[in-house]
Amino acid sequence: MFVVVTYDVNTESPEGRRRLRRVARVCKNYGTRVQNSVFECVVDSVQLLQMKAEILSVIDVVTDSVRYYNMGNEGRRRVEHVGAKPALNVDEPLIF
Amino acid sequence: MFVVVTYDVNTESPEGRRRLRRVARVCKNYGTRVQNSVFECVVDSVQLLQMKAEILSVIDVVTDSVRYYNMGNEGRRRVEHVGAKPALNVDEPLIF
Repeated sequence: MFVVVTYDVNTESPEGRRRLRRVARVCKNYGTRVQNSVFECVVDSVQLLQMKAEILSVIDVVTDSVRYYNMGNEGRRRVEHVGAKPALNVDEPLIF
Repeated sequence: MFVVVTYDVNTESPEGRRRLRRVARVCKNYGTRVQNSVFECVVDSVQLLQMKAEILSVIDVVTDSVRYYNMGNEGRRRVEHVGAKPALNVDEPLIF
């Protein structure tokens, strides 16, 4: 399955910035970062559940937001990109 | 069609921050903001082309990045949300 993960993590506190990095690190284990807070993952149903559980264990559900877009097996064909392709390093500070 | 629009706009300059607001304003005409740089739009093919053209006219393709995820007519059913649902006002400064 091609699953797009988007997230907003409140980075006003040092703890929030740490959560942001940890969410990115989890996503990196399952897919490719395409924008600051957007990952594209090719996962099976077990991996998807694992990723969701790991992300849930990292975020603060009161302040942070994560969305999963399951685009099915052919999802990659229905993605269009316009503009820059930032070469992002998940270990660098993610503040844009 | 249910189309997810995600974007990264370089906000290091005042001009970039203006582009960020203008992209959000375009997206708001076609859909709902669900995260800072993520909109969900229900559009027909003509509206999709119009939105893309308007966004293209606003962004700097060298520094900014926009992705369109066309999830088809049933896409909304394949979206999962976890965590906070920020009530975002597109006219407020978008720096998170």
